[in-house]
Amino acid sequence: MSDTAFVDSATIESQLRTARAAIAARSTVVRVVLTACGGSYANMTPVEYFLDTRATTLDARAINAAEFTSRNSSLIDERAVVVLCSHSGTTPETVAAAKHARERGALTIAFTFDPSSPLAEASEYVIAYQHGEGKSEAHVAAPLLLRLAAGIVDAVDGTDIAAAIDGAVEQLPQLAPAVRAAYGEKADAWAFANRREELIYTMASGSNYGPAYAFAICLLQEMQWVHSACIHAGEYFHGPFEVTDVDVPFIALLGLDETRPIEQRAVDFAQKHSDNVLVIDANDFGLERLSADIRGDIAHILFNIALRTYADALADHRGHPLSVRRYMWRMEY
Amino acid sequence: MSDTAFVDSATIESQLRTARAAIAARSTVVRVVLTACGGSYANMTPVEYFLDTRATTLDARAINAAEFTSRNSSLIDERAVVVLCSHSGTTPETVAAAKHARERGALTIAFTFDPSSPLAEASEYVIAYQHGEGKSEAHVAAPLLLRLAAGIVDAVDGTDIAAAIDGAVEQLPQLAPAVRAAYGEKADAWAFANRREELIYTMASGSNYGPAYAFAICLLQEMQWVHSACIHAGEYFHGPFEVTDVDVPFIALLGLDETRPIEQRAVDFAQKHSDNVLVIDANDFGLERLSADIRGDIAHILFNIALRTYADALADHRGHPLSVRRYMWRMEY
Repeated sequence: MSDTAFVDSATIESQLRTARAAIAARSTVVRVVLTACGGSYANMTPVEYFLDTRATTLDARAINAAEFTSRNSSLIDERAVVVLCSHSGTTPETVAAAKHARERGALTIAFTFDPSSPLAEASEYVIAYQHGEGKSEAHVAAPLLLRLAAGIVDAVDGTDIAAAIDGAVEQLPQLAPAVRAAYGEKADAWAFANRREELIYTMASGSNYGPAYAFAICLLQEMQWVHSACIHAGEYFHGPFEVTDVDVPFIALLGLDETRPIEQRAVDFAQKHSDNVLVIDANDFGLERLSADIRGDIAHILFNIALRTYADALADHRGHPLSVRRYMWRMEY
Repeated sequence: MSDTAFVDSATIESQLRTARAAIAARSTVVRVVLTACGGSYANMTPVEYFLDTRATTLDARAINAAEFTSRNSSLIDERAVVVLCSHSGTTPETVAAAKHARERGALTIAFTFDPSSPLAEASEYVIAYQHGEGKSEAHVAAPLLLRLAAGIVDAVDGTDIAAAIDGAVEQLPQLAPAVRAAYGEKADAWAFANRREELIYTMASGSNYGPAYAFAICLLQEMQWVHSACIHAGEYFHGPFEVTDVDVPFIALLGLDETRPIEQRAVDFAQKHSDNVLVIDANDFGLERLSADIRGDIAHILFNIALRTYADALADHRGHPLSVRRYMWRMEY
């Protein structure tokens, strides 16, 4: 499947409706496992946060797919919904996790760019997402994952959260380009100043840990060969903060969810002791058009957009395209 | 309370029995939350792994204490056991988590060195642990946490795992010094060779992620000001492995639980592309005296011991004692 031949939005909406209906029809659901690897795993952690803070009767867990299958938890059965994601749909660990979960009786729902991929085949339901030139910002992976989660909450708790989330996601085709444009020059200046840094930390908590983690492991480590670690802002003062120094670069996120005070405390300290703390604040994302009680649920999607401008600019100033790899796709491993 | 005046072993055993009995008496328990910060949080992750792989009816979760309280999950009620840990018992986030969980009706059990600390006061049950000169290796935090978890499994599932875990822990006063002695010279050579490294990655999965994470954030970042990240071995191939190079140092753990193949795959790749991969293999811990089916549950305790010899040696060769801090204990934050 080519990079640009994505599934159309109407089909995606139909797939989402079908998956939500399947969950609603299964009255036994008491837990949700969100499992994937790397960047797709990173996309699962805001969904775990959403379920933890919104659902009243669901246990939720985001977990690496290889770890999930190895744990072979007894709790994976007809009472579990297992949500999986792989861009190509070929990630062996995620495909194995889908087969494992389905064999144990769980309801399996796969997100993938390629609806004819092995992951889609292995899973009971599939929701395709768009990527690349011409995509709708409402039909990329992260907002669709969130909408499925909102549907799960409504199905299990009898609430009406999905309508609000769906409505917020409809704003993304306006919000996302505005965020991308707003950070262009700032990202360029930051990237120029940091082009020779060999290590850059990221930091966040709550629903924004995912974007910070993705930036650390996919954009910096994988695509720029820059050392990194994603520090949980709530862990910062219990070890990691001792590496803070005037010349140690941090990218710290300030989100809009219940954990913002945790992030703010870490930012305040880091800014006091390092001269190189980039703070990206979701208050600057133009989310005023959304109702206040769901801004925090949406912010992580826009952090991904804002952070991507920094990655693009860094790649440019380092002369190291984001597409370059030394191991991935180049050898067996 | 002085560093050496710890609670005697008989009292600790009595506290553990009392906590186990309290759990057994509460027939509503369906989930366990393990919450703490930093090194104490690291100690919780092997317990989550143990519960996930051993219990058939319990949802388990390890989570940073600040994040736990902020999420304010509806699931924290009389059906939850919330296990907390803080060495001093004064960690504000962990004390707040105990109060939060107790107010919501959860059964709270605190582990701490100081049984008269705020954390002990805030929690319904307390289990003290030993530390420092003269301690019993069976009565430090990690084995006691594991024994409590085994008691929870037995109480909820009607199994008989605790007896086996208790028996294995009784071997620690023999096993731990042997591991400490076995790694002394190796650690010294490694530390000399790596004394000028500014970044050292750690890597593991499953029940050994905790020791690898603790080494990264407490021993390297906090106590040596050496940059680090703990890479989950299952995530390695989905981003982080691209930073692997001949001169990038890794400490990789090979445990004895179900995730060992995940760790082995990451080790094989790292060793192929870096000349500086230290592998610590739990097969060298002398665990043959334990029955094969519980060696994996105990290994994380001995990883902590083996890794400490590396930290001690690194501190020595760097002339930077593990006790030195620039921020912790020296200022308000």
